[in-house]
Amino acid sequence: MTGAETNMRLKLPIICFILEIILIILFGVLVQYDDETDAREWHNKLNHGNKSHSEHNGHAESEIHSEYENDFYYRYPSFQDVHVMIFIGFGFLMTFLQRYGFSSVGFNFLIAAFSLQWATLMQGFFHGMHGGKIHIGVESMINADFCTGAVLISFGAVLGKTSPVQLLVMAIFEVTLLWLSLFQAKDAGGSMTIHTFGAYFGLTVTRVLYRPNLDKSKHKNCSVYHSDLFAMIGTIYLWMFWPSFNSAVTAHGDDQHRTAMNTYYSLAACTLATYGMSAVTAHDGKLDMVHIQNAALAGGVAAGTAGEMMLTPVGSMIVGFLAGIISVLGYKYLSPILEEKLKVQDTCGVHNLHGMPGVLGAIVGAVTAAVATTDVYGKGMEDVFPDVAKGDITASYQGVRQAISLAVTLGMALVGGLIVGFLLKLPIYGAPPDTICFEDNIYWEVNEVSLPVSEVLHIQCLA
Amino acid sequence: MTGAETNMRLKLPIICFILEIILIILFGVLVQYDDETDAREWHNKLNHGNKSHSEHNGHAESEIHSEYENDFYYRYPSFQDVHVMIFIGFGFLMTFLQRYGFSSVGFNFLIAAFSLQWATLMQGFFHGMHGGKIHIGVESMINADFCTGAVLISFGAVLGKTSPVQLLVMAIFEVTLLWLSLFQAKDAGGSMTIHTFGAYFGLTVTRVLYRPNLDKSKHKNCSVYHSDLFAMIGTIYLWMFWPSFNSAVTAHGDDQHRTAMNTYYSLAACTLATYGMSAVTAHDGKLDMVHIQNAALAGGVAAGTAGEMMLTPVGSMIVGFLAGIISVLGYKYLSPILEEKLKVQDTCGVHNLHGMPGVLGAIVGAVTAAVATTDVYGKGMEDVFPDVAKGDITASYQGVRQAISLAVTLGMALVGGLIVGFLLKLPIYGAPPDTICFEDNIYWEVNEVSLPVSEVLHIQCLA
Amino acid sequence: MTGAETNMRLKLPIICFILEIILIILFGVLVQYDDETDAREWHNKLNHGNKSHSEHNGHAESEIHSEYENDFYYRYPSFQDVHVMIFIGFGFLMTFLQRYGFSSVGFNFLIAAFSLQWATLMQGFFHGMHGGKIHIGVESMINADFCTGAVLISFGAVLGKTSPVQLLVMAIFEVTLLWLSLFQAKDAGGSMTIHTFGAYFGLTVTRVLYRPNLDKSKHKNCSVYHSDLFAMIGTIYLWMFWPSFNSAVTAHGDDQHRTAMNTYYSLAACTLATYGMSAVTAHDGKLDMVHIQNAALAGGVAAGTAGEMMLTPVGSMIVGFLAGIISVLGYKYLSPILEEKLKVQDTCGVHNLHGMPGVLGAIVGAVTAAVATTDVYGKGMEDVFPDVAKGDITASYQGVRQAISLAVTLGMALVGGLIVGFLLKLPIYGAPPDTICFEDNIYWEVNEVSLPVSEVLHIQCLA
Repeated sequence: MTGAETNMRLKLPIICFILEIILIILFGVLVQYDDETDAREWHNKLNHGNKSHSEHNGHAESEIHSEYENDFYYRYPSFQDVHVMIFIGFGFLMTFLQRYGFSSVGFNFLIAAFSLQWATLMQGFFHGMHGGKIHIGVESMINADFCTGAVLISFGAVLGKTSPVQLLVMAIFEVTLLWLSLFQAKDAGGSMTIHTFGAYFGLTVTRVLYRPNLDKSKHKNCSVYHSDLFAMIGTIYLWMFWPSFNSAVTAHGDDQHRTAMNTYYSLAACTLATYGMSAVTAHDGKLDMVHIQNAALAGGVAAGTAGEMMLTPVGSMIVGFLAGIISVLGYKYLSPILEEKLKVQDTCGVHNLHGMPGVLGAIVGAVTAAVATTDVYGKGMEDVFPDVAKGDITASYQGVRQAISLAVTLGMALVGGLIVGFLLKLPIYGAPPDTICFEDNIYWEVNEVSLPVSEVLHIQCLA
Repeated sequence: MTGAETNMRLKLPIICFILEIILIILFGVLVQYDDETDAREWHNKLNHGNKSHSEHNGHAESEIHSEYENDFYYRYPSFQDVHVMIFIGFGFLMTFLQRYGFSSVGFNFLIAAFSLQWATLMQGFFHGMHGGKIHIGVESMINADFCTGAVLISFGAVLGKTSPVQLLVMAIFEVTLLWLSLFQAKDAGGSMTIHTFGAYFGLTVTRVLYRPNLDKSKHKNCSVYHSDLFAMIGTIYLWMFWPSFNSAVTAHGDDQHRTAMNTYYSLAACTLATYGMSAVTAHDGKLDMVHIQNAALAGGVAAGTAGEMMLTPVGSMIVGFLAGIISVLGYKYLSPILEEKLKVQDTCGVHNLHGMPGVLGAIVGAVTAAVATTDVYGKGMEDVFPDVAKGDITASYQGVRQAISLAVTLGMALVGGLIVGFLLKLPIYGAPPDTICFEDNIYWEVNEVSLPVSEVLHIQCLA
Repeated sequence: MTGAETNMRLKLPIICFILEIILIILFGVLVQYDDETDAREWHNKLNHGNKSHSEHNGHAESEIHSEYENDFYYRYPSFQDVHVMIFIGFGFLMTFLQRYGFSSVGFNFLIAAFSLQWATLMQGFFHGMHGGKIHIGVESMINADFCTGAVLISFGAVLGKTSPVQLLVMAIFEVTLLWLSLFQAKDAGGSMTIHTFGAYFGLTVTRVLYRPNLDKSKHKNCSVYHSDLFAMIGTIYLWMFWPSFNSAVTAHGDDQHRTAMNTYYSLAACTLATYGMSAVTAHDGKLDMVHIQNAALAGGVAAGTAGEMMLTPVGSMIVGFLAGIISVLGYKYLSPILEEKLKVQDTCGVHNLHGMPGVLGAIVGAVTAAVATTDVYGKGMEDVFPDVAKGDITASYQGVRQAISLAVTLGMALVGGLIVGFLLKLPIYGAPPDTICFEDNIYWEVNEVSLPVSEVLHIQCLA
């Protein structure tokens, strides 16, 4: 049924094995336990800490008095929530397509498992070599998962139109570029680094890979009843754990606590805005699952930069409320225009969930940073804006820095996406033909007779 | 297909936007970070703690020596488990209906997102204004989620027969009444406050909203194969995380630890009772998914009050065992009677899962409190029964107080449900007609041709 | 439709009630709160700790200075992750069969709820009576869940061919034998104790229960599209939380941290190996869901023993990579041979997921232990290999001990499985006939007309 060129018998094993062997070699040469995971180093710290019995507070964290002060206990629960978002959240969110569930969950699984290893190396290369070695622990694991999130956002833009080999190649470059483009801004939940970068990178890639005859697969580019329920599993997990995502790598204490809470209220407000907007924009007043599955999450994206700041609960709610409105409007009015006029075929609408809300979040972050005062932050300024607390820069300048960071991120995403897009256009990766997009059967063994449920029942996509 | 009156084009957006704008205004005026989420306040506490280097124990919790003592680290993992119960647990538990999955998960999502914001305000109003301000942090987030749980229980009683606008109106009043009815009793897991209140409130509402012609939708009021599997996702998450639910706001240390463990064993015993009872009450010895999905959870409900007390593991198991038996008997014999004789159309059988087991839990709590002795509790009495520890009241009186609290809760639920029920009877909310209950299509865009799987396959509910 | 002998009306209630009543009696006589869950004991520890204000470190854990040092805070998040693996992970992994989803999740639920109670008693009997009493807390809860995991692995081998009564009887004996066979080796994640034992016990049982006419049910022994998606929920949860599983009972501090990280990288490498091997072994280059659902997890199994040791990140990746390769090869080439030649009907292929990777993990553990040096472990040697640290034995001898433990585990599993298999052959448990295996309808109420979706659509298993 499918041509020889989409056969993965050699292509996929070759890239999987070569990549994993390269990873193993590089890990062997470069990667070490950090001093919280290494048996000897940790116990050295612990013994040293016991000798000097002086201060015991969160700031002097290098003095350790107890096994309980291992960072594992203060980061690992957040890590696991992030992990669930990456593998269940993103994976199942994309199962909404009627016959692309295996690929959605399965390719998500594959490229995430690769990306987290590659991201471990890249963050070490660009942001933390210690005597020629990369030191790893729970915080680097969270960052690796974060970086993977950006790749999965881009996956959403090209969903249904790419081979697993293409996706792995995309991941290699995207992870590398993402670490290159990091800039001195506060962005704990990644409104810029993860969401804006992942979205505009993916949108540029899908633009370059434009398929003029994609309407030949149009009848498969929609959901069926149970595929929408599977997608809701992804949505709800992303929604619930977003507070953990935004707070996972902020400073300990009030910072993590505040970030989680701001995100919680931003998401709640966003959800009400989403339901309202979904009903008001439908001609018959019926709710659209696409909006609920996606736009209700925009509040988490938009709180990704300012969430750790003193945004206040009401500020968070306003941000979430706006994000939900923008996102539904994007799905309803902007996406069709992007597809028709700009030839951007954005399968999951990542521009509406990650792109615009990411930019909104970056702007909110810049403004919130610019108005920061010692009166509001007290000694907590050291955690949130250390350079401002030290007096090296003013709060306004921190705001400018945030804005520059957004510009850099956007620029890198567009340029990077352009280059990688052309690279992915080479006819060597086994991409599906226009007639068999959004279809598991091309890369997966499927019980043949069971698959065409939609055909037996004459399911058609709504106009 | 559906009349103009069920069209949500204006009704739903209006209520969503008005409610969210009111919430934003009230949050702006009233709500502040508490001293564990506020940057300045937390660092003031932290610095003060460091100066006075005297005692360092769990009781003098106001003296803080380290970022690691922020309550975030001791409550947030429990909060996230509770959050999963609210959004995945309740949401998917109700997807058992064959064509009501979008509404079950989707309306659950909407009313929970609203209720948690409204509950934040109500708990502040009635239980903790600080100089005219409501202070919020992880503990208030847990309480907001708890309160939301009561609303979702009531949702279970009216499932399939209400519009989203009705549900939001119900939530406004139920959340308010719930905080009004709180009484000086120990009820950490909410056997009374959450389960008994939510169930009897919802049952009264559904009684007032009685639909004599509901049998016209009877063929949709049952499950299909995969909808039962989706529902099991909800069941299992509720079951697994119930120990976190009951222990989420108990005192730190042994209290949280013991509450979680008591609930764990209560649920395990309940599960065996449920399987045994389900088989023995079926004429052909086959297990009934309705029992497994619901009655196996009754052990968590019944351990909601006494779970934090010295109930002992064996005590917990006995309570869970009884709860499972009562719950299956309720589904099998009591629910049909309630429907036929008392005209209570209880879609999910919340009377069997939350109502009776909640009352059982309240009684077990009163008895366990009444027999508490210093010999058993030692200094731990201060955490569990502070008034008894201080000598202000006797343990017997604490037991009486618990019993009075149950009576107050029941009274408030019945009176409140009556009033709110009549309010919801007004023909302005777009409730579905009797012929189109238990049907997503009335409020959701559904791929038309895909929906009638059950009709194509001639699915009928079992008698 | 089904004969009287498979009717569960009496059999299942009798065994459920008798077992639960025995459990309640034994818990009443033997089980007590430990000193971290008992109100009086914990507060005694706490007050004592406050008096002696001397040292405060992780080693002298008996001196408690704060409620925050209760083990609940350092074990409970891991416990909940393990709990999810047991009930969602194992439960949904087995829903891949087209009409056995109720039984997969439902019997998993039943036997797990029983086993965790029984395992609490058995671990106390064999490994920790205190003055005639069994003391329980979060660590014993984790161990009870672990032991349950072994039973569920065995369930995977006999899936679809046993009655719930048989499964409960199997659980009684398997839990008991497992605690009997524990040996002085390090095996925190249970490569030997849980995976090797569970797999070879189950394989022996299914061999004894060999059904020569099982091909009469062959058309039901395969998946449909949505059943494979439900199974992926199980897979992904197992995969994500395996780091918590392996680290749940290791020593506090670096040990838990390192174990989780080693497992994370082992699983990531395993996943790439699995995808590569799945494509290369398929004649048409298409990925096989069976491999993805199962073999991608083998990296967690194989890191179960050495994960807590100084395996290094690259060591973990090599182990995971090998485990993935072995596991896919097992599914592709070994399972058909085992079935045809050795008459081992292994429904879920537990030999490939738990058996061989478990043995691999045990061998890796023995080798890693044998080469341990103080130079690498420093003072951390006390946590990982206390006998080596004390100088009682050499590292090489520890390696020998690990190898002996593997042999003992295998021996006990085979002998135990043989005996229990013959016990389960008695025709009194209501096992399904050969013609109605892999079929929910025999033990569950199913909406009759909805079930034969596969028949309506003429679904057949692939050759």
